Amino acid sequence: MKADSLLERRYRVLGRHSPLFYERPLHLVRGEGVWLWDAEGKRYLDAYNNVPHVGHCHPRVVAALARQAAQLNTHTRYLDENVVAYAERLTALFDRELSMAMFCCTGSEANELALRIARDCSGGMGIISTAWAYHGNTAAVMQVSSLFTPEDKRGPYVRTVPVMDPYRERAGRSDEQLATAYADEIKRAIEGFAADGIRFAGLLFCTAFSSEGLPTVPAGFMAKALAHVHAAGGYFIADEVQGGFGRLGGHMWGHQKLGVIPDIVTLGKPMGNGHPLAGVIARRELVNAFASRNMYFNTFGGNPVSAAVGMSVLDVLEDEHLMQNAVTVGNYTLERLRKLGERHALIGDVRGAGLFFAVELVTDTQAKTPATAETKRLVNLMRDRGVLISRIGIHDNILKIRPPMPFSKQHADLLVDTLDEVMAAL
Amino acid sequence: MKADSLLERRYRVLGRHSPLFYERPLHLVRGEGVWLWDAEGKRYLDAYNNVPHVGHCHPRVVAALARQAAQLNTHTRYLDENVVAYAERLTALFDRELSMAMFCCTGSEANELALRIARDCSGGMGIISTAWAYHGNTAAVMQVSSLFTPEDKRGPYVRTVPVMDPYRERAGRSDEQLATAYADEIKRAIEGFAADGIRFAGLLFCTAFSSEGLPTVPAGFMAKALAHVHAAGGYFIADEVQGGFGRLGGHMWGHQKLGVIPDIVTLGKPMGNGHPLAGVIARRELVNAFASRNMYFNTFGGNPVSAAVGMSVLDVLEDEHLMQNAVTVGNYTLERLRKLGERHALIGDVRGAGLFFAVELVTDTQAKTPATAETKRLVNLMRDRGVLISRIGIHDNILKIRPPMPFSKQHADLLVDTLDEVMAAL
Repeated sequence: MKADSLLERRYRVLGRHSPLFYERPLHLVRGEGVWLWDAEGKRYLDAYNNVPHVGHCHPRVVAALARQAAQLNTHTRYLDENVVAYAERLTALFDRELSMAMFCCTGSEANELALRIARDCSGGMGIISTAWAYHGNTAAVMQVSSLFTPEDKRGPYVRTVPVMDPYRERAGRSDEQLATAYADEIKRAIEGFAADGIRFAGLLFCTAFSSEGLPTVPAGFMAKALAHVHAAGGYFIADEVQGGFGRLGGHMWGHQKLGVIPDIVTLGKPMGNGHPLAGVIARRELVNAFASRNMYFNTFGGNPVSAAVGMSVLDVLEDEHLMQNAVTVGNYTLERLRKLGERHALIGDVRGAGLFFAVELVTDTQAKTPATAETKRLVNLMRDRGVLISRIGIHDNILKIRPPMPFSKQHADLLVDTLDEVMAAL
Repeated sequence: MKADSLLERRYRVLGRHSPLFYERPLHLVRGEGVWLWDAEGKRYLDAYNNVPHVGHCHPRVVAALARQAAQLNTHTRYLDENVVAYAERLTALFDRELSMAMFCCTGSEANELALRIARDCSGGMGIISTAWAYHGNTAAVMQVSSLFTPEDKRGPYVRTVPVMDPYRERAGRSDEQLATAYADEIKRAIEGFAADGIRFAGLLFCTAFSSEGLPTVPAGFMAKALAHVHAAGGYFIADEVQGGFGRLGGHMWGHQKLGVIPDIVTLGKPMGNGHPLAGVIARRELVNAFASRNMYFNTFGGNPVSAAVGMSVLDVLEDEHLMQNAVTVGNYTLERLRKLGERHALIGDVRGAGLFFAVELVTDTQAKTPATAETKRLVNLMRDRGVLISRIGIHDNILKIRPPMPFSKQHADLLVDTLDEVMAAL
């Protein structure tokens, strides 16, 4: 009743097309750690949101935010200790080559800036993304966001490579063979630009291949891909909005897991635990060359409050050993999900790394037919039973499970047990 | 010494091209109301920053921020009372036609979205801006930001109209004549698109014409301009990032002062008093048509914390009667600046509205020769004497004075007295 009336009010001011999760939208009023509460007081296990990276409303992050907001909040055209200290701390988390930072407010802005840098420094316009990518909502970034932009609307400067799907495509091939096959797609796309007289600028990938359904990337793929990219004078932009900040467990950044050093890295969502903070980390020569030719200033980007918040997120990540937690609890969850797969024929594949999991649902284990309708029903039933997850992939048949980082084995048990019940009842 | 070392550290991580104010960059550590303090404890009157709209670190805004950040911070894909209540309160401040809101995080994102809406709904690509405009830092917005993008880099879809300069161009003409002459420039630009077979999408203007030097717009200009825009099937995007939220005194929005109702309005800087909050307010049919054809979601845009902060800014604006203050203190300041102009030949023209002033400096009152070098020196000398201002205009010879809204007559006296001293010593 209350939610309905709020929904009607929302329709009037935000419109009916402003995206909402679930068939019965969720009216939330409170968050803490991995928990969310709705207006009726019902509690939900958050196994979806990566923005509250170190947990909803983490007291240390809130304290840092409140303290700095009461002290000073200006912009980077004045000198400020916070932003310099944060940029130092942040760049120290990257390979030595990636030594400079530019701050902005959203992942979209970070990818916008990365595209501008890659295009300015390469002198080219051609960008390659995957055929089911999402990198943000600006005009330029939307063109490479193939998930929402059909091919005929992407313009001449965007080409895509097929989404990797080793679950279906391995066909007895070794990692080496598969990696070469996938990298060859990138080579072909680069050649396609050349054939059309379009100079190549770079390759933009989410390092978790999140929208693509979290495929298990064959070892060596990214190094082979980058060899083609660099040989053609392009740059690799690693979108770490989803794969970064320890999300994938063993590595701070998704590109490290992929075994390569990018030219440009984009950061977003988890960076400020919900505070609008994002950034670009790039090779020194690229930042210097771009900035010497182009004025870039972002009023809110890297302001003292954002920097203090970003710093506190890194503090909590370190002090609470959340990357180690992602490894331990991640492996435990993966194991439990795999066991679940042995008992439910609907589960075709379970994969993931750290605290990011994909459970691919199929109606036929042999034919691997996507169970799209079932996946949608399951996500909504999970919500009704108090566990928040979502779905991804070209066929929307892959459960997207990506909880805040303080996710424990107990939380994992609740997640998997609820999945088990819901699947039995489906 | 301390500032130097911080500067060196900054150069290493942010680069030498990241913009900094003043010849001797200012290292700030604290802000309160209209005051800022540097690392040596020196106090500065802030007569420049419009982001801390209701005053630096306003306790009510900080409290709203801290309270909501400790309670819940998610995104608009869940139902939330804060964002709906804020959208209702905000849209109620506009003419009835402008009834819907879309939230994002920066003015750049707001202008990006506005361009996407105008282009999608008009079916055209052609955008008109002024020849000295700045609207943000994304690729699409940068193309219309003529201040930083030379004509040959703006692409085929951007045309500019000359910057209005009634101070030099009135030449005995009435407001009516001048308004018609300026509006005809827009007509010509529209015809130019048509001649090249480019469909017109819209006109994008800062409602204060801030970068352009705050020209005194002849009465009736905007209505005449809009007649041309609408006759050609285009939309008027009013960029209220600088002119909005009561800045110009008598009206909440710059477009109201210009006497027109836009199709799309973009909001930014002052909206969250420093918190990264921005938005688009537009006609219902435009938002609905655009959103039915295009997925738009902004992770941080309109989150519960941003909405609570935005609401608190409106509360303070109202409860502290800051728009009325902008009228009273604005008129007082304008009067004092004009009197100053009578005693200093360097001052060619004084203009402004509310708490936004332009003082145009010329080396020759008759020839109106821009005093560019003197303006730069003056801005730096003002900083040395503890008053922060900046400069604008095609010739960079116009003092930009735009203090936080709780600016008092006493503050105005300090500003004008310091200007007087510095001009005498120049």
